[in-house]
Amino acid sequence: MIPRYSRPEMTEIWTPETRFRIWFEIEAHAMDALAEIGVVPKEAAKVVWEKGRHASFDVERIDEIERTTKHDVIAFLTHLAEIAGPEARFVHQGMTSSDVLDTCFNVQLTRAADLLIADVDALLAALKRRAFEYKDTVCIGRSHGIHAEPVTFGLKMAEAYAEFSRCRKRLVDAREEVATCAISGAVGTFANIDPRVEEHVARAMGLQAEPVSTQVIPRDRHAMFFATLGVVASSIERLAIEVRHLQRTEVLEAEEYFSPGQKGSSAMPHKRNPVLTENLTGLARMVRSYAMPAMENVALWHERDISHSSVERMIGPDATVTLDFALARLTGVIDKLLVYPERMLQNMDRLGGLVHSQRILLALTQAGVSREDAYRIVQRNAMKVWHSYQLAGRADIDFMTELLVDPEVTAVLSEDQIREKFDLGYHTKHVDTIFARVFKD
Amino acid sequence: MIPRYSRPEMTEIWTPETRFRIWFEIEAHAMDALAEIGVVPKEAAKVVWEKGRHASFDVERIDEIERTTKHDVIAFLTHLAEIAGPEARFVHQGMTSSDVLDTCFNVQLTRAADLLIADVDALLAALKRRAFEYKDTVCIGRSHGIHAEPVTFGLKMAEAYAEFSRCRKRLVDAREEVATCAISGAVGTFANIDPRVEEHVARAMGLQAEPVSTQVIPRDRHAMFFATLGVVASSIERLAIEVRHLQRTEVLEAEEYFSPGQKGSSAMPHKRNPVLTENLTGLARMVRSYAMPAMENVALWHERDISHSSVERMIGPDATVTLDFALARLTGVIDKLLVYPERMLQNMDRLGGLVHSQRILLALTQAGVSREDAYRIVQRNAMKVWHSYQLAGRADIDFMTELLVDPEVTAVLSEDQIREKFDLGYHTKHVDTIFARVFKD
Amino acid sequence: MIPRYSRPEMTEIWTPETRFRIWFEIEAHAMDALAEIGVVPKEAAKVVWEKGRHASFDVERIDEIERTTKHDVIAFLTHLAEIAGPEARFVHQGMTSSDVLDTCFNVQLTRAADLLIADVDALLAALKRRAFEYKDTVCIGRSHGIHAEPVTFGLKMAEAYAEFSRCRKRLVDAREEVATCAISGAVGTFANIDPRVEEHVARAMGLQAEPVSTQVIPRDRHAMFFATLGVVASSIERLAIEVRHLQRTEVLEAEEYFSPGQKGSSAMPHKRNPVLTENLTGLARMVRSYAMPAMENVALWHERDISHSSVERMIGPDATVTLDFALARLTGVIDKLLVYPERMLQNMDRLGGLVHSQRILLALTQAGVSREDAYRIVQRNAMKVWHSYQLAGRADIDFMTELLVDPEVTAVLSEDQIREKFDLGYHTKHVDTIFARVFKD
Amino acid sequence: MIPRYSRPEMTEIWTPETRFRIWFEIEAHAMDALAEIGVVPKEAAKVVWEKGRHASFDVERIDEIERTTKHDVIAFLTHLAEIAGPEARFVHQGMTSSDVLDTCFNVQLTRAADLLIADVDALLAALKRRAFEYKDTVCIGRSHGIHAEPVTFGLKMAEAYAEFSRCRKRLVDAREEVATCAISGAVGTFANIDPRVEEHVARAMGLQAEPVSTQVIPRDRHAMFFATLGVVASSIERLAIEVRHLQRTEVLEAEEYFSPGQKGSSAMPHKRNPVLTENLTGLARMVRSYAMPAMENVALWHERDISHSSVERMIGPDATVTLDFALARLTGVIDKLLVYPERMLQNMDRLGGLVHSQRILLALTQAGVSREDAYRIVQRNAMKVWHSYQLAGRADIDFMTELLVDPEVTAVLSEDQIREKFDLGYHTKHVDTIFARVFKD
Repeated sequence: MIPRYSRPEMTEIWTPETRFRIWFEIEAHAMDALAEIGVVPKEAAKVVWEKGRHASFDVERIDEIERTTKHDVIAFLTHLAEIAGPEARFVHQGMTSSDVLDTCFNVQLTRAADLLIADVDALLAALKRRAFEYKDTVCIGRSHGIHAEPVTFGLKMAEAYAEFSRCRKRLVDAREEVATCAISGAVGTFANIDPRVEEHVARAMGLQAEPVSTQVIPRDRHAMFFATLGVVASSIERLAIEVRHLQRTEVLEAEEYFSPGQKGSSAMPHKRNPVLTENLTGLARMVRSYAMPAMENVALWHERDISHSSVERMIGPDATVTLDFALARLTGVIDKLLVYPERMLQNMDRLGGLVHSQRILLALTQAGVSREDAYRIVQRNAMKVWHSYQLAGRADIDFMTELLVDPEVTAVLSEDQIREKFDLGYHTKHVDTIFARVFKD
Repeated sequence: MIPRYSRPEMTEIWTPETRFRIWFEIEAHAMDALAEIGVVPKEAAKVVWEKGRHASFDVERIDEIERTTKHDVIAFLTHLAEIAGPEARFVHQGMTSSDVLDTCFNVQLTRAADLLIADVDALLAALKRRAFEYKDTVCIGRSHGIHAEPVTFGLKMAEAYAEFSRCRKRLVDAREEVATCAISGAVGTFANIDPRVEEHVARAMGLQAEPVSTQVIPRDRHAMFFATLGVVASSIERLAIEVRHLQRTEVLEAEEYFSPGQKGSSAMPHKRNPVLTENLTGLARMVRSYAMPAMENVALWHERDISHSSVERMIGPDATVTLDFALARLTGVIDKLLVYPERMLQNMDRLGGLVHSQRILLALTQAGVSREDAYRIVQRNAMKVWHSYQLAGRADIDFMTELLVDPEVTAVLSEDQIREKFDLGYHTKHVDTIFARVFKD
Repeated sequence: MIPRYSRPEMTEIWTPETRFRIWFEIEAHAMDALAEIGVVPKEAAKVVWEKGRHASFDVERIDEIERTTKHDVIAFLTHLAEIAGPEARFVHQGMTSSDVLDTCFNVQLTRAADLLIADVDALLAALKRRAFEYKDTVCIGRSHGIHAEPVTFGLKMAEAYAEFSRCRKRLVDAREEVATCAISGAVGTFANIDPRVEEHVARAMGLQAEPVSTQVIPRDRHAMFFATLGVVASSIERLAIEVRHLQRTEVLEAEEYFSPGQKGSSAMPHKRNPVLTENLTGLARMVRSYAMPAMENVALWHERDISHSSVERMIGPDATVTLDFALARLTGVIDKLLVYPERMLQNMDRLGGLVHSQRILLALTQAGVSREDAYRIVQRNAMKVWHSYQLAGRADIDFMTELLVDPEVTAVLSEDQIREKFDLGYHTKHVDTIFARVFKD
Repeated sequence: MIPRYSRPEMTEIWTPETRFRIWFEIEAHAMDALAEIGVVPKEAAKVVWEKGRHASFDVERIDEIERTTKHDVIAFLTHLAEIAGPEARFVHQGMTSSDVLDTCFNVQLTRAADLLIADVDALLAALKRRAFEYKDTVCIGRSHGIHAEPVTFGLKMAEAYAEFSRCRKRLVDAREEVATCAISGAVGTFANIDPRVEEHVARAMGLQAEPVSTQVIPRDRHAMFFATLGVVASSIERLAIEVRHLQRTEVLEAEEYFSPGQKGSSAMPHKRNPVLTENLTGLARMVRSYAMPAMENVALWHERDISHSSVERMIGPDATVTLDFALARLTGVIDKLLVYPERMLQNMDRLGGLVHSQRILLALTQAGVSREDAYRIVQRNAMKVWHSYQLAGRADIDFMTELLVDPEVTAVLSEDQIREKFDLGYHTKHVDTIFARVFKD
């Protein structure tokens, strides 16, 4: 996580100020429950809320105390006592530091997940808009980087829409994984604290009570969370690479938006580089990589060791901030993507109609020509066109024209029948069906 | 995937025989649909089913054909024609190889997921049985590898039960991710095949139609699948490491089962090594590692490239077979785990009752002693016991005894009050609550 | 590791037969040393060598024994006794199983490294040949996928040559990392075996004695080995992706070799897919992924745990066999790569000479025009050409022609001066310098 | 990289100030060479050096310019012109931004490597000191976490010393990998800049000229660099886990240093947690994880894409700062590690001398008892001791005593012979040999 690839709303979640605010809320809600069951005076809980609710916790002061106590939660509680006065002695009763730390981390992760889900929603909106905008804009489909058969640019957007719809669902599931709260004491047995406190704090913080904790909330939850972020990042990479391919000089069917005054290079006006999507490719690598330490964090020793902590202090912000930034950047790219339908047709046409060869083959077969003969006939004509393309990067010969003068073809297919096989509509006839499947609401 | 760490039922899913059987079913179901909408003769579909349903596909013959055609699906179709006769010419009409390959891969993955879910169910059953068996068996809880406060061995099993319940849900979700079918032609536009064929095959094979495919089924689904397997493997590692710790010579609170005649070492009778759980630790590393290439597989170029294929030919079997083996091995370990309740108490007692020091501290405070004084009093007594432990590995002095003769303690706490603080029941009073949360049905 | 991506010479290293042969050699060499220092009779060592040297160890028989003993080394020793007779009782004296297992694994890895180094040598030879063949074949250099300035195809090959030269050195280093032998007994103290035995076996097997072992050879060595393989795989991926890009329909500057009769698609003659390099992309992902579990293997507990073993049984063969196959496949691709110099020029020319715009800019500046004016002048002319390209995918306007009629240009540059700026030789003048750096011998 | 796990000297390398300083030096050295070959006036080079050498570059001013130019190198050059005056127009002549950026990154990495190597040297010194301090301090060796045979604590330190000596060599190699400089222009052809400039700058900055670059320095170098850091981190993890094991309550043979006033827990005096080594375990996971994106960075498209940049902006500082911190922390841990030789003996003795059972077995065999009988005799006595241990966690029966009264033993072995087998010196007799191998200088 570095400022260059960060957005303020997500970064905010990971500031010390936010963390101390969440700690306060956990402690204060716990006091409410403790007061309710008679462990601490109700008045004390009230005072702590009153003094703390609008207090601003002094990060430098807390750091200063921590330098003495070498314990961050104790430092915070000490500072809270400075703010709340003598009633603060009832704070944290029967609790253990991890109760606060782990519940706070999960609050942060669920908030981060909320932002990520909103990011995906914005991306989905952009994809949907561009999908319908170019629903019928024909371009060549490519397998292995080689021209195959026509698709539409709208279909590409629809595919991405479907993929990010799945990512959205995964993020919702991932959020649920970490939306738990533990207030269960030193080894998770509730020896010194009533389970009702946990239930109250969970409810108050919008979480579920962790069914069984062991001082810490089990880290398989977090492994699943960060693994999911890695999958979402991989989908970002896919769409980014699609744009990078389309912007290649030789393809140039789409381009990242360039503001009027922007310069790609000081000398070469054609240097519009797909730097945003290249950047996204790198960011995806980073987010993906955080899944590994998150998985290694699962196998803590016995009731807990603290090896997960240093990992999470890093990947908590690093993974969420970077993914948030990447999703927003991708949304911008899609939103403003320059699309060149003319170039799409030109690129397709450079092969002189060869993309229709399969249809001619089928037509000949259906007209009674043996498969072997049909293949020979099609290939004979297609190879002329292909060689012409291969020599010059643009076919000077037209496949349809060749077929119309080949007696073996015209013997079984009329001119109309041949021409009909070059109809692009044949390839797009089910686009509406696919759109209906993808955009269900 | 190697025989040593494989079980037949999972391996079976990945044999050529199974693959060809699934290919046949996809092709034959597709023919049914094609026949239904009038593209191929109903009689042809019937014949293909009749001849193929019980046929055994000859793997060597197909390999032989593939050496000529250099194309596995064509080789299969040629062999199918040898079996089904002239009606086989209607097979695969309008389809592309990936329609068969990708749908088959997803059938294999869902079957693999079914086995994995059943594996987890067996593990859950073992964990539940052992959890209730040792629900009230007190042992020391350890944070950072250091004695903390008492838990029960049943709680450890309950924690694992809760964790693997989550893993079960994740596997169900992962199964759903890959339970899709695509029969959509060369670039996914259904240009040459009616979408109804896809819908029929999906239904017949127990899958959902992929909303939008691009010759291939999108690989974010598989990334999620293999990432989930990595998380499950990490949970296996956690429980394996718990057992390894408990079996250490110095701890010895539990042991992997040893058959009566088994020898750990030819000379040293105490050499009972936790080799099964060590093995599981390694297997977890492997399953986890497969998540990375699965995520890198997502960003295929344009409508598809085939870079994912070599990865999946490896991790498809490798990840599922290894995880299946690991889950079964772990179930065996838990099922037959030797548990030593006596040793648990002995280990706890080696610290001479020090684990209760926190309760004494609280009692003194509640009796009106200032926190500073209370801490000083407790520490004074505790340090004697601790030094005794530290010197000999077993406290020769008893914490309770020391307290009972300390005038500063006895001034405010009666003997009964002191003795009561050493009651283990204090720590286990909420075990039933936790069990009720974990074992809901 | 699967047969489809395996070559026999590397696979051979990992067969049970080879393993037992290496075990025998380790045991027999150890006997020689033991005999030399008087621990076992010299005659016994002689007999074991005589009986075992040409014996074929019966894998099924050893497996059968292992089913009883549950110990692979003991099973082997039992079988060896069946072959060598009573003198076999002196075999393995004072040794521990890991002495044999770990030393054997390192022998296998060094042999694998030898093959990999030879693979890289073959690749280097192919790269060098193609580099000199196309040393002066100009093609466009692309940054961000966008045309930049001219390079030569030979330079691309030279870059790959330099990269794989580095990979070769890395493999030599990696080989050295694992070329160690340990015969040091149960916990590495040589309590029951003289260190001279280790030294003798090391020498005899072409290894170094491990300075200090702990029953096992330390796994940081193997982590480094497999990490290095991951880096080499990443270089394979780079070159594979270069080929895939060059073979794209719109670029088509090079193609994987197609045998005359080969079909890329049953209908479309242009469907020559870069399937070999796509396959290599996937294989690189796999080899890279094995670095992770190898690194996790380092932190064994105390003097050893056996968690590394299951990992190594998999990645030992998987990583080396796959990388060997990938290197050989890449060599074949480079060796037979179809290169189209004409197309390279055509692609470059499609931008109507725009790639020379920077030189014009510099010439104007050097002729006294202010940088601002020079930029404006160049851009005015360049944009005409670029728009023409952007509209049609091929510039209908020529940059040089435009410049020659622009009074602001001709005011300061003569026609000759302008024409000279379009000389491709300007860009290739240092190719020989670079080649001299890269091909030093 | 977060402040909590950072040290100033390493962090300093990655500040904007340092980066701009390095950029300046690269540009100024390049000017020297350009002046030498007559491309720019020598006076200009002199002025730039004079004005820039001691200038402090204003990071905020440069950021401000970058907000307009959207290009960091141009922003820097603009600011440099503000400092150096009109002569600055000769700066950067014929160079491309990557020439500066990539060379600077490699300067930073080599400086980072220097610090890391110094860190390892400090660690090696600590390990060597502790190794000799405890060279003959016997403790039990453990395989699989189970007592095996005696080793010495010094040997454990020697093993770590040998491992980090290897890590040192790897870091030196890794440093060499990235110690290259490229000043080769837009696509690496030196079209606009003489190769002698590169050679001069390389020499001046302590680097080698990159034999062939492509606008960028090839990223296989960096992949190897970060992979090496991952291996070093894994060795840190190993030693950290050793300490964590030794500090377990039940083992307690060593402890991380606790300052007199430090509190592990507010109530429990025995709560000295190995938090430093747990922390190191987590940091190792992080450093290891950065190897993956570094390897994925290798396969840039054609002459370069910029996807590596975002990755390196993160892992450049993250990996080096974290590893530097971890090495220093580990050095502190080793340096001040509390070692308890008495406890080592107690732990060993808890098994009542069982660790010597193998020697008795061998002695009986050598005295003529058949292997079967010898095993039966040893096992009979050993099992008594073992059961006693298993029941109580400390054997109440002594193995030697049992043997001395077993007629089948005393029939062939004298008391002296039996007693001699319990000599710990037998296990430590080769410690000096091993130390001589490890500490060669």
